[in-house]
Formats: sequence, C-alpha cells, structure tokens
Amino acid sequence: MRVTVVRVYCTEGDHKLQGILKHLHDVEKVRGVTVFRGIAGFGASGKMHASSLLDMSLDLPLVLEFFDHPDKISRVLDHLEPQVEPGHILHWSADLNMEAE
Amino acid sequence: MRVTVVRVYCTEGDHKLQGILKHLHDVEKVRGVTVFRGIAGFGASGKMHASSLLDMSLDLPLVLEFFDHPDKISRVLDHLEPQVEPGHILHWSADLNMEAE
Amino acid sequence: MRVTVVRVYCTEGDHKLQGILKHLHDVEKVRGVTVFRGIAGFGASGKMHASSLLDMSLDLPLVLEFFDHPDKISRVLDHLEPQVEPGHILHWSADLNMEAE
Repeated sequence: MRVTVVRVYCTEGDHKLQGILKHLHDVEKVRGVTVFRGIAGFGASGKMHASSLLDMSLDLPLVLEFFDHPDKISRVLDHLEPQVEPGHILHWSADLNMEAE
Repeated sequence: MRVTVVRVYCTEGDHKLQGILKHLHDVEKVRGVTVFRGIAGFGASGKMHASSLLDMSLDLPLVLEFFDHPDKISRVLDHLEPQVEPGHILHWSADLNMEAE
Repeated sequence: MRVTVVRVYCTEGDHKLQGILKHLHDVEKVRGVTVFRGIAGFGASGKMHASSLLDMSLDLPLVLEFFDHPDKISRVLDHLEPQVEPGHILHWSADLNMEAE
C-alpha cells in the first residue's frame, strides 16, 4: 500500500505536541504515530536546542512521525499547517507492508 | 548507490526486536541498522504507548531502521513480514554515498 | 517546496558530531537540523553499539538529520563526504510545507 510519511518538527517548549497527538489519535485515527525526542537541533532561526549531562534542557527537539493513505494525510496536513510554523512539516511517499502482499 | 530504507515499528512490550536485530546482524549482515526508542506513539489499534517523568513506561515504541541494496532488502522483507503485524513495515528509496562518488 | 532530506550515521565514540553540527549551523545555516541518539545499532563492520540498564554505553549510534533546498544540500554533501566513512550518508527527496502552500 502506498502511503505518505510525515515528520513534524517542534520542540518541548512550544507545547504543540499534545494537541496534535490528540487530533491524530481521536479525530483522524491515523494508522501509526511515533514521537521522538532529539538530543540537539536547530531550525531556520538558528537557535540551538541541546542538552548535555551538565545542562538539562527542557526545550529539546521533538519529531512527530506518522503515515497513512495519501488522501487522509492530505486532509491532516490541511489541519496541521495553520498550527505549525512554515518549513516544519516534511512529507514523502513510501510503501507499507499489508496483509495482501 | 541506490538503496531501500526500511523502518519497522514495534514496541518494547512485544519482544520482537532482539530476534530481528540478530537476523539482520548474523544472517543478512545488513549494511546499517539503528534502533530508536520513541517517547510516545500509537498504532492502528489506537492504544497509546507513552512515558512521563512520573509514569515510567516499559512499553515504549521502538523503531528499527536499516538500509541496503534493494535486492537484499527485498529478501529481508520476505523474512520479516510473517513476524511483524501488517502495516508496521515502511520502506522507500534513497541514495547512499559511496567511495566512488 | 521540494527539499533533500539527509541522514548521517555516526556514533558517540567517533566525535564527529560537534564539528558537523557547527558547520551546518555557522557556515551553511541549514534550514532544520535534528540529532537523535539510537539505543542500538551496527554498521558495515558488524560491530554492535548498544546500551542496557546494566551496561551504560558511551558509544551509542547518533543520527544527524537535516533538510534544505537540493542545491544547498548538494554543496553540504560535497563538504561532508570526505569527513564521514562511505556508506554513512543517506539522502532522498521530500516536500516541505511553506507559507505559500
């Protein structure tokens, strides 16, 4: 099955994750969603988000990854794009293994 | 070199990781394998896997990522698909830098 | 906007991350960079990098992910390839949401 994979880049400090996760879970029932915490990162602003053993950051990068049928993802992206800064949502096509394969 | 990238989605609780990792390492000698632990996630069942500082989950999402020549990956997928639930293996094409480039 | 996504695979033990991150941040001002730490992994050598609760590894896999315009990424890859072993840089095309979309 052909799917669209999405990665949304945010940080712990912008408090967007819970709302997006709830929408994907409760409303869209997206097929698979995983959230990863990065150990360092920066965006277009150049502001570095990082942690070290000495300096425990509470504003690390978070990446929300999910995938589903292209039509559903297109609707999800229409919903997410107004909530997330431009340049923070990446998507590409991939194949998902299904029963019939 | 053109390669196929694979991401296999499982959880700590399903105890599939070690067996798959051993197969990729000992039998197929796949070119590159990395395992990531997510901090939250859910699959088609909608069951949420998450951790917080207060509630230390032992069933977090695990993602196994690997890549190699498309022919080898095709053989690896034939081996993995019966072991993993449908809809939990994603793959797409990418370019890998090699000496000759 | 069409972008190229890159993933560079290194380990904590090879001490390459800081230099690459500094170059991407200070010189190229790449649009988005995130670093992830894996919990296990191995490369073409087959040497396993892993951690457990009992055995705290200081040589875990690190993945540096970034994306930008294909022309900029092509220049970045020319700079990175001599510093990183062959077979450790993966890249593919994706779409990035922008204001105008």
